[in-house]
Amino acid sequence: MRILLIGYGTMNRITARLAEEAGHEIAGIIAGGKSDPPYPAFDSIDAAGADVAIDFSHPDLLLPLLAGEVKTPLVIATTGRKEELVAVLKEKSGSLPVFFSANMSYGVHVMNTLLKKALDMLEDFDLEMVERHHNRKVDAPSGTLVKLLDTALDHREGSYPVYDRSNIHEKRKQEEIGVSAIRGGSIVGTHDVIFAKDDEVIEISHQAQSKEIFANGALKAATALVDRPDGFYDYNNLFEER
Amino acid sequence: MRILLIGYGTMNRITARLAEEAGHEIAGIIAGGKSDPPYPAFDSIDAAGADVAIDFSHPDLLLPLLAGEVKTPLVIATTGRKEELVAVLKEKSGSLPVFFSANMSYGVHVMNTLLKKALDMLEDFDLEMVERHHNRKVDAPSGTLVKLLDTALDHREGSYPVYDRSNIHEKRKQEEIGVSAIRGGSIVGTHDVIFAKDDEVIEISHQAQSKEIFANGALKAATALVDRPDGFYDYNNLFEER
Amino acid sequence: MRILLIGYGTMNRITARLAEEAGHEIAGIIAGGKSDPPYPAFDSIDAAGADVAIDFSHPDLLLPLLAGEVKTPLVIATTGRKEELVAVLKEKSGSLPVFFSANMSYGVHVMNTLLKKALDMLEDFDLEMVERHHNRKVDAPSGTLVKLLDTALDHREGSYPVYDRSNIHEKRKQEEIGVSAIRGGSIVGTHDVIFAKDDEVIEISHQAQSKEIFANGALKAATALVDRPDGFYDYNNLFEER
Amino acid sequence: MRILLIGYGTMNRITARLAEEAGHEIAGIIAGGKSDPPYPAFDSIDAAGADVAIDFSHPDLLLPLLAGEVKTPLVIATTGRKEELVAVLKEKSGSLPVFFSANMSYGVHVMNTLLKKALDMLEDFDLEMVERHHNRKVDAPSGTLVKLLDTALDHREGSYPVYDRSNIHEKRKQEEIGVSAIRGGSIVGTHDVIFAKDDEVIEISHQAQSKEIFANGALKAATALVDRPDGFYDYNNLFEER
Repeated sequence: MRILLIGYGTMNRITARLAEEAGHEIAGIIAGGKSDPPYPAFDSIDAAGADVAIDFSHPDLLLPLLAGEVKTPLVIATTGRKEELVAVLKEKSGSLPVFFSANMSYGVHVMNTLLKKALDMLEDFDLEMVERHHNRKVDAPSGTLVKLLDTALDHREGSYPVYDRSNIHEKRKQEEIGVSAIRGGSIVGTHDVIFAKDDEVIEISHQAQSKEIFANGALKAATALVDRPDGFYDYNNLFEER
Repeated sequence: MRILLIGYGTMNRITARLAEEAGHEIAGIIAGGKSDPPYPAFDSIDAAGADVAIDFSHPDLLLPLLAGEVKTPLVIATTGRKEELVAVLKEKSGSLPVFFSANMSYGVHVMNTLLKKALDMLEDFDLEMVERHHNRKVDAPSGTLVKLLDTALDHREGSYPVYDRSNIHEKRKQEEIGVSAIRGGSIVGTHDVIFAKDDEVIEISHQAQSKEIFANGALKAATALVDRPDGFYDYNNLFEER
Repeated sequence: MRILLIGYGTMNRITARLAEEAGHEIAGIIAGGKSDPPYPAFDSIDAAGADVAIDFSHPDLLLPLLAGEVKTPLVIATTGRKEELVAVLKEKSGSLPVFFSANMSYGVHVMNTLLKKALDMLEDFDLEMVERHHNRKVDAPSGTLVKLLDTALDHREGSYPVYDRSNIHEKRKQEEIGVSAIRGGSIVGTHDVIFAKDDEVIEISHQAQSKEIFANGALKAATALVDRPDGFYDYNNLFEER
Repeated sequence: MRILLIGYGTMNRITARLAEEAGHEIAGIIAGGKSDPPYPAFDSIDAAGADVAIDFSHPDLLLPLLAGEVKTPLVIATTGRKEELVAVLKEKSGSLPVFFSANMSYGVHVMNTLLKKALDMLEDFDLEMVERHHNRKVDAPSGTLVKLLDTALDHREGSYPVYDRSNIHEKRKQEEIGVSAIRGGSIVGTHDVIFAKDDEVIEISHQAQSKEIFANGALKAATALVDRPDGFYDYNNLFEER
């Protein structure tokens, strides 16, 4: 594929490297004023004549680019101003294929899908969630754990998260979903969901080793997107409808 | 429920205890000559007037009992002479609900289902399987791991298991499915499937704490079976068709 | 060995079974009025002529038995009124070998010893602790985790536990020791200490499968104690001084 | 510290970056003919006037540099021609502090130390070892696992490794040490030792996230080495004798 990069921060630098290693070509870049990118600079999406555009930027750069006509398939990972952005992308998707995900890791998508399946089958199992991240992370639990938790809260009517048991002195209730956040060193990110009932435990876990998983996810989505019909795609329908 | 037990070895003793703890009644037992069971003894399945019969016995006891008419719903965990047994059970299932599984653990069934889903979504991930059991187990890998492995071999055309890497001096091939068996102490049974690709790992694991999971599985199946239409059921259709 | 049991609740019933399986003899029992124990009943410790006494009882039963002269080596697991009990046991240990531990699991003792060694070597690693127990447990964290935490707090001056990160919005401080408690199903007990620093993680974990580990610990201590000189022993000096 | 780098391959490039991030200065480099290193080039160790030299090179570059007088403290991670190299380093250590380790990861050293302690305390536990690495690794088990295995074989007289249980049809013997190698994706390296006995399991594990742990280990050793007396050091005596 010939790929246009929108934004050229940490993520799209990784995307460029992994794309080239995989035999793709970087057709150019819309860098929003960054000096001296090592690829041809463009200021509109279609000008590069690319097969697909991969965006890891921000709404201030992206939204103006979407104001006019766009014909290049889009893989969008921008976060921020989500509702406004999704509305614009859905309108664009009437005439081109558009993929959007706030979490580009394909593995996290798979984990969330397995969690839904497990929730269907393990209704009366106790559910706990644990994540591990590095010691510089200021929020807890992680955004990915919140996403997994939302999946579980949606499935289990009346369920609610419990973040601290040290001040509770009673038995666990089945509606509880325990949430634990572990912080240390430079751990990139581990997420673990634990289903427990009489004498058995079932766990699903995802371990990330580097930020490359997000770039790989974008490339995987781009590869699938380029020969799909016009429409709005996310991980739930891009791979499963074929 | 009023439950008839067929066989009264380790597994049905556990079943009796767990059933009573859950508020069910043991209507009686077909013990095949065991002296002094603590429940009324019967020598035909329908004589006990039970809601369901749970069998953890062997073909020599079970098959003669199935020779005549049977009206009591059946949950069958007998292993051995499987083809003959399944043929008889399928014939019976024309006029009563019959549940059969060679592995009564509901959790292992769930794990196998999650594995299938993961295999669909993680085609290009390397797959490895690891199990742990106690030091008295004479076979390796475990029957449960063989079941999980068969699921994976069916999904991945051209794949094959690799049991020992210590005498291989080349890179792993994607068609390989690594299988490791760990033995020690009194570990009841742990099964772990590991999907790995660039910078991420997804794992699904099942940990058994005691043999009670098989009795609990039989009770769960019995509870679901009693109000189902006549037919032949296993874990793949008992819970999912509703 | 010929063993006298002090107390005949859940723990000493398990002790009796495991002792007999290992070829020891139960010389008798001081049951405090329990009806019909399956062993000869005594009301003073030396009367049974045992090689060692194993106690899993309570101070109301035990302390009066220690009021007079005692010549039988003692393995004591009573909890409650700890200071009073230890004072009496130390006085007794002038004329007989006495072993006391509030946690009879040898494996937990080993884990605590490994933790001390790791604390010595991993001063600048972040430390987190996680335990898992069944859903009927009303306290959190577990007594065993508190013991491990005390070991760490003693080693790391200025350190303090953090039980909940969901309401903290800043980077982890190195003096923090994160503590997480997971509850579900019938998990017997798992304890995990996690040391993390740049790009590496070292973990030590202990997984209990049943309460038998406490009875096994008492038997292991009794076997070591019977040929030791008079004195007061715990896991820190019983095995290491030889 | 002012650091001289001997060799400028992958490892010392990482060392340079981490050293500068930690506030150290790269005094220069002995690159063996590599063109255009970004630091002053030298061809003898003392010429750079550095506080310490860190070597990640090979005997062909290193041994000639050691032929004459050397006054700069040395941290040496060269592998190959080990006996010859150690003989030369020991001779040098009469007049300067020298640190040598074939595995520069401090965490792996800690794990090996914890393993020794555990072997002392868990004589009658079954022992199994498992490692995970990426799918491009051609040897199994890993060099680090071999090191851990050697530690265990030295401690347990009559013990021997078992690499494949799939063709054994008998109970595990206590003298066995099971060894499993898992391969997949880009896993950097995980090592796990498992001690199991009646109803309890104790595990020690080390997880590496990147090759930076080897550079960090070299920097940690260098920092400790510069103010030590002349002598030959490794991880067993550098940190513990103080």
